[in-house]
Amino acid sequence: MSFRNAVNLSHLCVKMRVKPDDTVVDATCGNGHDTLFLAQIVTRGRVLAFDISPLAIANTAARLKEHGVSHRVELCQEDFRNLRAYVRSPVAAIMFNLGYLPGASRETATKAEHSREAVETAVNLVRPGGVVTVVCYPGHQGGAEETHEILAVTGGLSQKEFEVLKVDFLNQAHNPPLLVAVYRLEGDRA
Amino acid sequence: MSFRNAVNLSHLCVKMRVKPDDTVVDATCGNGHDTLFLAQIVTRGRVLAFDISPLAIANTAARLKEHGVSHRVELCQEDFRNLRAYVRSPVAAIMFNLGYLPGASRETATKAEHSREAVETAVNLVRPGGVVTVVCYPGHQGGAEETHEILAVTGGLSQKEFEVLKVDFLNQAHNPPLLVAVYRLEGDRA
Repeated sequence: MSFRNAVNLSHLCVKMRVKPDDTVVDATCGNGHDTLFLAQIVTRGRVLAFDISPLAIANTAARLKEHGVSHRVELCQEDFRNLRAYVRSPVAAIMFNLGYLPGASRETATKAEHSREAVETAVNLVRPGGVVTVVCYPGHQGGAEETHEILAVTGGLSQKEFEVLKVDFLNQAHNPPLLVAVYRLEGDRA
Repeated sequence: MSFRNAVNLSHLCVKMRVKPDDTVVDATCGNGHDTLFLAQIVTRGRVLAFDISPLAIANTAARLKEHGVSHRVELCQEDFRNLRAYVRSPVAAIMFNLGYLPGASRETATKAEHSREAVETAVNLVRPGGVVTVVCYPGHQGGAEETHEILAVTGGLSQKEFEVLKVDFLNQAHNPPLLVAVYRLEGDRA
């Protein structure tokens, strides 16, 4: 067993915190890989999945249908900075996978300032004991700036309320993706 | 549940890879906290514990005796660069907790070049599927240089043979300790 990469590790972080009847969020559904992963772990729960791109929403819908889990997922073609309008009560997990939609134009990439705002909103929408995962791509065009923004906003969170881990894959070539995992603390530390 | 700090997270990494009948190594036994942790998980196995300081060896011996696990531990007052002379066959885990001995003179701190050499030796003494954990203290005097050396040597390991993760606690004050975990890969990736 190995962790392989930041996306795979983000799944592990989420699995450790999510129960089958939870509500969870995919903030950047892209081609639907994370959305499908979430739908497969909340077998009695619900997934809210967002993407601003109609192509991403269509690709995700097709993937969910293929795996027979569409009924557990609400797809929203929406800017991820507007999460708060849809997430009415605290959720167990919110996943971000930044960068551009694989297979589509790179002009559709997430933008540093927008991503910062969305992540800042997300950390306040998870319950105590819940987690926000952010996969960042410092090697992409504009990705270094975006990564910098994510590290700045999560690194500034209150130590009393959140635990923030950054995981780098040190010996991989070509600026590999990294993971930021924000845990909302429970109990007397919260 | 939270990970709290790099030392606590290093225990989690080791627990995931070690079975009760394994042989494991504490390369820097210090006051014996990691040695005790290891002795308590290899209930049918064996711990080799090293420290160059006689005070560290004495403190560790006392701690192990207090918890009734001395019989599973071999204590060696020895420079950790000489691990290879004692570790005759591949082990499941080797733990490093760098810096100075808590409670003693700061002159006893590990040295950057020595630590680099010891870690470089250690990664080749764990079995496929095993792990080397290194807790680094960039906030200590000389700790930034030592951390730099550890990141350089582990970041340069072959991607085919090792997976190397660096975990930072992003929102903690005062240059918190960080963890480097080196996994030796199994099977077709090794």
